[in-house]
Amino acid sequence: MKTGLVFRKVKAGILGATGTVGQRFIQLLDGHLHFELTELCASEKSSGKLYEEALSGRWKISSHIPEIAKKLTVKACKPDLDCKILFSGLDSSVAGEIETDFANKGYVVISNSKNHRWDKHVPLLSAEVNPDHLELVKHQESYKKSGGFIVTNSNCTIMGVTIVLKALTDKFGVELVHLVSMQAISGAGYPGVPSMDILGNVVPHIGGEEEKAETEPLKILGTYKGDEIINAPIKISAHCNRVPVIDGHMCCISVKLKKKASVEEITEVLQEFRGEPQLLKLPMAPDKAIIVRTEADRPQPRVDLMEGKGMTTVVGRIRPCSLLDVKMVVLSHNTLRGAAGAALLNAELMYRKGYLSQ
Amino acid sequence: MKTGLVFRKVKAGILGATGTVGQRFIQLLDGHLHFELTELCASEKSSGKLYEEALSGRWKISSHIPEIAKKLTVKACKPDLDCKILFSGLDSSVAGEIETDFANKGYVVISNSKNHRWDKHVPLLSAEVNPDHLELVKHQESYKKSGGFIVTNSNCTIMGVTIVLKALTDKFGVELVHLVSMQAISGAGYPGVPSMDILGNVVPHIGGEEEKAETEPLKILGTYKGDEIINAPIKISAHCNRVPVIDGHMCCISVKLKKKASVEEITEVLQEFRGEPQLLKLPMAPDKAIIVRTEADRPQPRVDLMEGKGMTTVVGRIRPCSLLDVKMVVLSHNTLRGAAGAALLNAELMYRKGYLSQ
Amino acid sequence: MKTGLVFRKVKAGILGATGTVGQRFIQLLDGHLHFELTELCASEKSSGKLYEEALSGRWKISSHIPEIAKKLTVKACKPDLDCKILFSGLDSSVAGEIETDFANKGYVVISNSKNHRWDKHVPLLSAEVNPDHLELVKHQESYKKSGGFIVTNSNCTIMGVTIVLKALTDKFGVELVHLVSMQAISGAGYPGVPSMDILGNVVPHIGGEEEKAETEPLKILGTYKGDEIINAPIKISAHCNRVPVIDGHMCCISVKLKKKASVEEITEVLQEFRGEPQLLKLPMAPDKAIIVRTEADRPQPRVDLMEGKGMTTVVGRIRPCSLLDVKMVVLSHNTLRGAAGAALLNAELMYRKGYLSQ
Amino acid sequence: MKTGLVFRKVKAGILGATGTVGQRFIQLLDGHLHFELTELCASEKSSGKLYEEALSGRWKISSHIPEIAKKLTVKACKPDLDCKILFSGLDSSVAGEIETDFANKGYVVISNSKNHRWDKHVPLLSAEVNPDHLELVKHQESYKKSGGFIVTNSNCTIMGVTIVLKALTDKFGVELVHLVSMQAISGAGYPGVPSMDILGNVVPHIGGEEEKAETEPLKILGTYKGDEIINAPIKISAHCNRVPVIDGHMCCISVKLKKKASVEEITEVLQEFRGEPQLLKLPMAPDKAIIVRTEADRPQPRVDLMEGKGMTTVVGRIRPCSLLDVKMVVLSHNTLRGAAGAALLNAELMYRKGYLSQ
Repeated sequence: MKTGLVFRKVKAGILGATGTVGQRFIQLLDGHLHFELTELCASEKSSGKLYEEALSGRWKISSHIPEIAKKLTVKACKPDLDCKILFSGLDSSVAGEIETDFANKGYVVISNSKNHRWDKHVPLLSAEVNPDHLELVKHQESYKKSGGFIVTNSNCTIMGVTIVLKALTDKFGVELVHLVSMQAISGAGYPGVPSMDILGNVVPHIGGEEEKAETEPLKILGTYKGDEIINAPIKISAHCNRVPVIDGHMCCISVKLKKKASVEEITEVLQEFRGEPQLLKLPMAPDKAIIVRTEADRPQPRVDLMEGKGMTTVVGRIRPCSLLDVKMVVLSHNTLRGAAGAALLNAELMYRKGYLSQ
Repeated sequence: MKTGLVFRKVKAGILGATGTVGQRFIQLLDGHLHFELTELCASEKSSGKLYEEALSGRWKISSHIPEIAKKLTVKACKPDLDCKILFSGLDSSVAGEIETDFANKGYVVISNSKNHRWDKHVPLLSAEVNPDHLELVKHQESYKKSGGFIVTNSNCTIMGVTIVLKALTDKFGVELVHLVSMQAISGAGYPGVPSMDILGNVVPHIGGEEEKAETEPLKILGTYKGDEIINAPIKISAHCNRVPVIDGHMCCISVKLKKKASVEEITEVLQEFRGEPQLLKLPMAPDKAIIVRTEADRPQPRVDLMEGKGMTTVVGRIRPCSLLDVKMVVLSHNTLRGAAGAALLNAELMYRKGYLSQ
Repeated sequence: MKTGLVFRKVKAGILGATGTVGQRFIQLLDGHLHFELTELCASEKSSGKLYEEALSGRWKISSHIPEIAKKLTVKACKPDLDCKILFSGLDSSVAGEIETDFANKGYVVISNSKNHRWDKHVPLLSAEVNPDHLELVKHQESYKKSGGFIVTNSNCTIMGVTIVLKALTDKFGVELVHLVSMQAISGAGYPGVPSMDILGNVVPHIGGEEEKAETEPLKILGTYKGDEIINAPIKISAHCNRVPVIDGHMCCISVKLKKKASVEEITEVLQEFRGEPQLLKLPMAPDKAIIVRTEADRPQPRVDLMEGKGMTTVVGRIRPCSLLDVKMVVLSHNTLRGAAGAALLNAELMYRKGYLSQ
Repeated sequence: MKTGLVFRKVKAGILGATGTVGQRFIQLLDGHLHFELTELCASEKSSGKLYEEALSGRWKISSHIPEIAKKLTVKACKPDLDCKILFSGLDSSVAGEIETDFANKGYVVISNSKNHRWDKHVPLLSAEVNPDHLELVKHQESYKKSGGFIVTNSNCTIMGVTIVLKALTDKFGVELVHLVSMQAISGAGYPGVPSMDILGNVVPHIGGEEEKAETEPLKILGTYKGDEIINAPIKISAHCNRVPVIDGHMCCISVKLKKKASVEEITEVLQEFRGEPQLLKLPMAPDKAIIVRTEADRPQPRVDLMEGKGMTTVVGRIRPCSLLDVKMVVLSHNTLRGAAGAALLNAELMYRKGYLSQ
């Protein structure tokens, strides 16, 4: 019975709570319907301090630190916490081992780092795209022993693009994708990109980003079979750029489809796309996973970023491509849809599917 | 004998002298070896005023108006001027007819506007790429009657890219090009892009730009045969974006070659490319038409823009493309190499080839 | 009885509905407790068109045009409208006469333009500062004849500063104010400031702004006596600058007080300041008119702008000034607290005080 | 005899050669008339590496590292170098002791750090303002023993302002100064200000800056008497802000003069001001120490920054101040006039005055 579930909230913690992704998790968990924030973890040097003190002025995503976080004392990232699920915004330099430790001890870990994305039994979960991949966790060693497991989020750049590709794949099939990203500075965390490097400038390189953009969609769009994911047979070529925009990654994509389709058909398919989060009406799910703008000059990061509270992917300029078949512009919020929001949506999906019962 | 030429400068005028391209022309003609600025023309309402007064504070490209321009009185754009050559920065809404009038009266017109670019006997001249196209002017009606003719510059976005494609075409052949531009605000002139539209934002559309980017390189790289240009057999797909950068258009391009080549071979070919301006040592010609940077994060508009006094195209990130063959980043200065500087280089070429003898 | 008032909403129109202030009015009137948007007026050339059509893509303040405005047909600014109150975002070049016409015909006009600010019987109303000035309207000729009258908003730059000065005046007295503003581009409307002028730059001049900043606070803080306002005996010196910030005017002020006070006393007085909007709990009124931040580097426009939904003035860095007595930084939202929001708050005050009964 | 001096260049080294001030020194010493760059020093971890390698991609001030620096091997900051003079761009956390060590060993040290600015016998030298203060070095212990001494540069913010105050002091006397700065990000070095903090934002605080701005001008403008400097009897109040501008600190100042003067008189005095660098025609000295712009909206950092190769202070908007006497806007280049360029100008002054003879 739904009402019952609402009142028994699942206790949640955050790994890397002082970083920018961690801060977003706090913001999104504040007053959440299914989760109760009980633990904040960070590096040893923050351990034992009250959260506000540990931050020492580095709350960067809004005007005020939510009250829910102020009263918590930061702990080290050790698996002896009072919670069931952990949202991890840890840096890849430390995330790998810590997340494994937690899973082994029976915790559910949702990771934003790259470390476990290619582990055979770890889903690269995108709630609208591959909710069935969630079952893969049952093959994780830790799941069998302790009930703990790891689920990963993809790289922020291709999160919105992959939803678009999912909608296109279902109806027309996708063979090739050419992608050029123009990515916001918040994608690099804090302090992140020095202002001397990006003010009035474009940096045509983001370390490791193109590799992720060319490979992660293949697993996300892949097929769950036996105990593994068979990658989707799509080829992607990516150029990734940093631009002086605060939030919002925008991609110019060109796509070759298996079955030809008109601009009108593609527009309709994207507009009508609904994933499982929409069907289940999950709390973080936007009404529409994709919105198509028909104005000549949209989407734009500063204007369209907050569609669906930052969880909707906004597409525009759908038109024929003279090399492949169709080209368009895809915008999504890199720290909401592309990181913390997507992680929370994944957690809501697990909650509904019974993966978080204690 | 060279010394003689130096002393007999060709008198030059500017059409659209108060606009941003016009201002660049003034700056570049100040102290030029072959040209002497004698006439400034603009709209009727500026006519009769001293240049500084006509500008009323809109000198936008440097700290001070050059002295050379201050003493000139602005005239209307009528073909009764004391000069041989006219550099035109006129807007396309008026350029077509005015430029034709001047050519008919025996003037040489170098246009930055789109109006005459596709006229059968008007070359879309790029001094490094197609100096032989210059001969096409001899087929113009005006040339036969009065000696006057029109030469055009291409759109600023693809000026640098076309030089790169020229170098690649000569050695390997080019079949397909995918291009995503990130273009500076100065490309829209003044007042141009409202700050409310572009500060901290990206606008994924520039009116008419993609069409030009997809077609003009075909004529520039085309073959001069009989009395016309046969377009090059290349297919181009373009996405054009405006970014919050002052000067410098940057393009992410992916190219399919006829003959496969390694990154090293491509790098070498680009670095060693020399066009006729380099061979003739024209005053505006940079030593190197193309420079290749090998750092992971270059070129960048703010850092690399002024290579070769803004006339060198800077290329970086040459690497394989999984869809086509090779991808790279191409930067060039949109108001120097992409507009006024290229026009002047074309004029210098004409001067050397004897097209401006009076 | 309050409940009764809620159900009889006052019909409201907007003069200059296609401009940026007009757009803000639409946004704020959407679903308002006391007002019902019934009329949108703009220039002759927009007249007769549906609002969205009249805008032709220039909706600039959010992602979507509110539904409330989409169904309305734009009318000319003529006093034959079906509404009681008019929110005017008209440009000063036309506002003077039009606003007078409306008042003469019995309409209540709330003007954001400078034209009538210094009319003897027109209050320069700031709901937190001088609610008693409202009575001045009863001396307007139009009021006596038709019940119509004009109320004005001050210049956006000093709106927040004046609230701070009010709090200080009440407790300590204010003699001298030195003010340097750093103002957002949205203050200039749309298209407003060309990006070529402001990207990576500061422009140390805004036409007419310093004069307003030095004089308008004197009337706002003045004393209502007989049928006029006696200006407050304060001297102000202002430097106004434009900076590359989207929204939010920030001022560095130094103040000489009549009665000396410590930083702690000043902080307390500002934090505890409540105006009539707070006491009456008007819909647009923030809980706190002023918030004081104690961090070393606050307030900042991008971070603190939306305090109290953009209606709270945020103050920081309160510290002694070696020339005058105290210095501080004052931030307020220029198009909410500084324009449309303040106008609506004034209207709510009039509503409660019975000035809008029909 | 001048010709002789030209040929015997003084060997120069740089302390903190990998930082942004150090990079500027390299740029300015490249091809210098009086100095020959022989030594580059940095932290232990750079020691022993070729300069380009030590930088590892952090050359931030132009497109290419000058050849002059590429062939040098970086050394530790130890006083066993082959040079006479050291330009120090060391951070204040280490500058104090290192600079003292060098002076004790007979080197001449020009420091950009705050550590020794208030040492009794160390001049806070500004070549246009107080060239006579140079003699103070003869009272330094190190000078007496080894001939080595320390000279300091002031904080970058007030460098240009102090030249203006000097011109005003000489003619009218200055009593009070109110100063609000809007400072460029390059003032914080590299990586310096995180882009997340400053893009589209203003930060109303720069650690320690206001204290320096309020005190250093007093010593610079002070009187050399006996063996010390008597501070000038001026009171200054400063607010310092960081704005999203690459280079160029701009200050709004209001000044109270001892002797009243008209805007015209002040303008004339500033325009005609010449310091000793101008009289001696030192290589780095701009023709005019101060330029006054009379346009309503100048100076602007992006437009006027490079006047006099970045060594001229540009003043504008000179007008009466209703609180003090006169107000104006002052712009100077923070890393040229405000740091490396000023240091080099000081060195040129010492060279001419015979302080660097070996």
